[in-house]
Amino acid sequence: MIKVSLPDGSIKEFEKGTTPLDVANSISAGLARNVISAKFNKETVEVSTPLTTDGSLTLFTWKDDEGKKAFWHSSAHVMAQAIEEMYPGAKLTIGPAIENGFYYDVDFGEHKISENDFKKIEDRMLQIAREKHEFKLREVSKADALSYYKERDNQFKVELIENLQDGDITFCDHDSFTDLCRGGHIPNTGFIKAVKLMSAAGAYWRGDENNPQLTRIYGISFPKQKELKEYLALLEEAKKRDHRKLGKELQLFTFSQKVGQGLPLWLPKGAALRERLENFLKKAQQKAGYEMVVSPHIGQKELYVTSGHYAKYGEDSFQPIHTPNEGEEFLLKPMNCPHHCEIYNSQSWSYRDLPKRFAEFGTVYRYEQSGELHGLTRVRGFTQDDAHIFCTPDQLDEEFKKVIDLTLYVFDSLGFDNFTAQVSLRDPEDKDKYIGGDEVWDKAETAIINAAKEKGLNYVVETGEAAFYGPKLDFMVRDALGRSWQLGTIQVDYNLPERFDLTYKGSDNETHRPVMIHRAPFGSMERFIAILLEHTAGNFPLWLMPEQAMILSISEKYEKYAQKVLTLLENNEIRAVADNRNETIGKKIREAEMNKFPYMLIIGEQEEQDGTVSVRKRGEGDIGTMPVEDFAEIINNEIKKTLKAFKV
Amino acid sequence: MIKVSLPDGSIKEFEKGTTPLDVANSISAGLARNVISAKFNKETVEVSTPLTTDGSLTLFTWKDDEGKKAFWHSSAHVMAQAIEEMYPGAKLTIGPAIENGFYYDVDFGEHKISENDFKKIEDRMLQIAREKHEFKLREVSKADALSYYKERDNQFKVELIENLQDGDITFCDHDSFTDLCRGGHIPNTGFIKAVKLMSAAGAYWRGDENNPQLTRIYGISFPKQKELKEYLALLEEAKKRDHRKLGKELQLFTFSQKVGQGLPLWLPKGAALRERLENFLKKAQQKAGYEMVVSPHIGQKELYVTSGHYAKYGEDSFQPIHTPNEGEEFLLKPMNCPHHCEIYNSQSWSYRDLPKRFAEFGTVYRYEQSGELHGLTRVRGFTQDDAHIFCTPDQLDEEFKKVIDLTLYVFDSLGFDNFTAQVSLRDPEDKDKYIGGDEVWDKAETAIINAAKEKGLNYVVETGEAAFYGPKLDFMVRDALGRSWQLGTIQVDYNLPERFDLTYKGSDNETHRPVMIHRAPFGSMERFIAILLEHTAGNFPLWLMPEQAMILSISEKYEKYAQKVLTLLENNEIRAVADNRNETIGKKIREAEMNKFPYMLIIGEQEEQDGTVSVRKRGEGDIGTMPVEDFAEIINNEIKKTLKAFKV
Repeated sequence: MIKVSLPDGSIKEFEKGTTPLDVANSISAGLARNVISAKFNKETVEVSTPLTTDGSLTLFTWKDDEGKKAFWHSSAHVMAQAIEEMYPGAKLTIGPAIENGFYYDVDFGEHKISENDFKKIEDRMLQIAREKHEFKLREVSKADALSYYKERDNQFKVELIENLQDGDITFCDHDSFTDLCRGGHIPNTGFIKAVKLMSAAGAYWRGDENNPQLTRIYGISFPKQKELKEYLALLEEAKKRDHRKLGKELQLFTFSQKVGQGLPLWLPKGAALRERLENFLKKAQQKAGYEMVVSPHIGQKELYVTSGHYAKYGEDSFQPIHTPNEGEEFLLKPMNCPHHCEIYNSQSWSYRDLPKRFAEFGTVYRYEQSGELHGLTRVRGFTQDDAHIFCTPDQLDEEFKKVIDLTLYVFDSLGFDNFTAQVSLRDPEDKDKYIGGDEVWDKAETAIINAAKEKGLNYVVETGEAAFYGPKLDFMVRDALGRSWQLGTIQVDYNLPERFDLTYKGSDNETHRPVMIHRAPFGSMERFIAILLEHTAGNFPLWLMPEQAMILSISEKYEKYAQKVLTLLENNEIRAVADNRNETIGKKIREAEMNKFPYMLIIGEQEEQDGTVSVRKRGEGDIGTMPVEDFAEIINNEIKKTLKAFKV
Repeated sequence: MIKVSLPDGSIKEFEKGTTPLDVANSISAGLARNVISAKFNKETVEVSTPLTTDGSLTLFTWKDDEGKKAFWHSSAHVMAQAIEEMYPGAKLTIGPAIENGFYYDVDFGEHKISENDFKKIEDRMLQIAREKHEFKLREVSKADALSYYKERDNQFKVELIENLQDGDITFCDHDSFTDLCRGGHIPNTGFIKAVKLMSAAGAYWRGDENNPQLTRIYGISFPKQKELKEYLALLEEAKKRDHRKLGKELQLFTFSQKVGQGLPLWLPKGAALRERLENFLKKAQQKAGYEMVVSPHIGQKELYVTSGHYAKYGEDSFQPIHTPNEGEEFLLKPMNCPHHCEIYNSQSWSYRDLPKRFAEFGTVYRYEQSGELHGLTRVRGFTQDDAHIFCTPDQLDEEFKKVIDLTLYVFDSLGFDNFTAQVSLRDPEDKDKYIGGDEVWDKAETAIINAAKEKGLNYVVETGEAAFYGPKLDFMVRDALGRSWQLGTIQVDYNLPERFDLTYKGSDNETHRPVMIHRAPFGSMERFIAILLEHTAGNFPLWLMPEQAMILSISEKYEKYAQKVLTLLENNEIRAVADNRNETIGKKIREAEMNKFPYMLIIGEQEEQDGTVSVRKRGEGDIGTMPVEDFAEIINNEIKKTLKAFKV
């Protein structure tokens, strides 16, 4: 008999040789039907692998990441079989599961393959799937493994095997197909109900451009046809919402090869959008007692030696800027905190002055390899909605709660209503890794957890995930497509106050160290606007829209009235433009809808006579003819509903 | 007889040997009394120098810069005589006139001299002055000159003479004193009625630290005692208004050795002041049809090679920033224009789209030697209120006028009511120096002059002072102490449109080059705020004041009512703070006056009962007790008077 412990903490006895599938069956028939992968003592095993020792077992279904991994890895085998059958002489190399699906790198030899061939490969894969072939793992000797692939003239697999130890080599068989494989499969091919090959791309063997070029075929598979459909629809929607595409269409930002990659240039509409977001946060921050400061975009290298950033990031960053003489060295600032510490240090403080909350929309520069740059989400220069709170240890609790309030206000005003939080604490087994004594850590960790609780956050606690300089709270926001983004970090810092020798005079007249909180509800203006674009598909909350209404005149004759309406709207602080082109009203409406105008105001003879506008709401259609003032009221009421004032 | 032409264009005949003083006498006795210096055929001469050829003569009085130069240069002689008499063995070196006064570098040998000795030197100088000794220039041979100073063991003068040509050496005598001198003196010492030695400082012979150290004595002199008094009062006032001193007292900005010299850190009150100025200009610019853009603070070196900035400034600037790999090179941006050109180039334009006016508060970085840094007026990083207008040549005229309107609006709103303008044109004798053909230059120059005329500017035209890339208009503003500052440049640019290949499609459907206008009414936020601080001594226009009112409670008992008043003021958009300390009201008023609060609101029992405040205006005193709302009206009316909305 062996003892098997399960994730719920229970320990059960089974006969030696019991398989994970047997264990699942002992729990419920439903689980047994759905289990597709397992881990035993932290190693991936097949659900059919006999268990021969005591150990802990985790069973995975499609819902688990590990289950998906086995599902997609197995699907790669099925694709490989289909390719081997259909393209004689094609040589398989490696075929792993990835975040969304799987790929296989294949040397197709004389064969040419294109996306036009995908359909017939998919068909053959589904046929193999329907035949419910079992995946069977078996050990092979190194000699046998080598001779198997040498016979097939596959130098790639030979090379892989040569790097493996005898006794550590397994093959996986299903149907007529065999592959070199470590394991981690679903029970049989029958689980695969839907398959889609996504794309083909060139890839060098082992990623080295001196090696032969292979063809990488990307695919994805699902246990239900419906799930594939949903996935493809999501992909389609994500493509439509790609912030790089929308940013171009809505004329928000651009890049220039001459200025440099990863360095966005904000066009007028984008710059105005950014400013609107900044003003929104500034207003709330002012109420919350923050003070704006302005600091330069460079600092002496010495500043970052003091802060520790140079030792940590110096070599991988933009390199120092030298001066023509005087031998000075400056760095582009990668963070605003050292500058704010120097501002704090520019005068002496008493406990009565604290907390000081210095905020800055500070543009920082960080070097990223060009291959890693992506639209506005991975850039080389970005503006943080940064602030640093300098407070006494006793104020930490209250300050933390205030920062949470502000962060939730930001999420609420911008339509992010689905989020979770993570509290990261230090590893109590490894206290030496962290700066600061037990007392301050206990105080801070308690403060964060209390704040999270009191503010009713849906949070998890992760022990050992704190930064070395302090515990933190991160928000994960789920967007309209169900994707998760990290937004809004709040970090406690005991390190910089030490390094910059920050002090205040306590009520005991002694010198004390303040605690620092770093926080940025948006994170960065660039990344936030990218996420907001993809979340809203460009249909920003009304208060944020670059233009809230488009005036569509029936013909050029009404240009003068259009101008009058425009002025009236401006007086009511509504952003609008007019389309007086000599086009059909139908075309004008279609274009305005495409360009995301929330409201269209149609004007013609009747409207001019009555001093009214005919209002169309995007996605809803006609909502009636009314005086401009009434329309202004509608729009301003709508804004009031979503954009409430921040309350301290 | 010789013919002498005078600045008014008249030509008069005189006998050969006539002196400038004779000429002055022939014009008026008043002029003859006041003339102290002259130029004949562009060379400085004494008023007693006989004129022996035809030529043009300019006569100078104390009111002219050349007159002051002669006055102060002559005063240096008188100081040298006094020093030589009082410090036997002291060796004179050089003693020129400078912008404000004169100095003499002296090797005092064994003598020690300090500011305590100034009085007796001044007294001796005034005695010499009263004796009305004539300054007489005479030619000496090199041999005689050398032997004169060798006898006196003065190796400095010997060195100077050795570098001169025989026949080109003159000595100047007055009283018992003789000095090596080129000339340019007032008639006699009697013109000097007031003298003040300002300071003593170390100075190396010929500015080379390997040479002996001398003592430089600075002095200034005037033709009237009253003028000296006024000058000293002005100096005292300038010291009080020094923006570095005020910036510290008003907590506007600071510098940190760690961040780096010449890189200001804006403290909360300074950052808020800056933002208020920016918002003021943004609002006017929006009305004037500008669009804000945002660009990064770095750009690839290539960008500045294209713009020509790298060839011109590269070596003397902050050096390129390298990346850890990929071999890219970036530069800190010294100007925003290349970025704005790339923004223009990010799409194609038709003549109907122009003018495009891209504005940005763009922070730029320029390397200055540490010795040249000065507070906020000479820094290494500063934010320009920059904008670039891209227009058709036909629109230049109109655009120029609009920019002048905006600039004058800025000056008016900020209390700069004393200014002149300079129109800089190309040198018609040297057209090759400039980019762009006759037609475009003629058009632009005419446009600028017409605009200056039409806007009623007090302007001068300087031919040959244009930049190589286009003509320009500069504003010189005179501050409260009578000092001149250049503010508000408007430049036409034909160069960057070529270099960046900027185009638009004309009404003829052909491709054309737009013209660019660079403009910055403030110049830079840093320099402008420095000038504004010195101009206003920190008493900014009310709309700009960091805090407009200080609530002074009679005792701590009224803290609650103070808070109520504060909230009422906030609701009326008035910036105020409260001083509830347990200090006497007299002390509180004195401190608030010193800290430049325009209004003080005193509250005690009576005020709390009646819901009023007792209002004191800075510099005026009590203006009555009134409800908070009435005070809000007073303050808002005062703002409306100085800060009018910009009208297009």
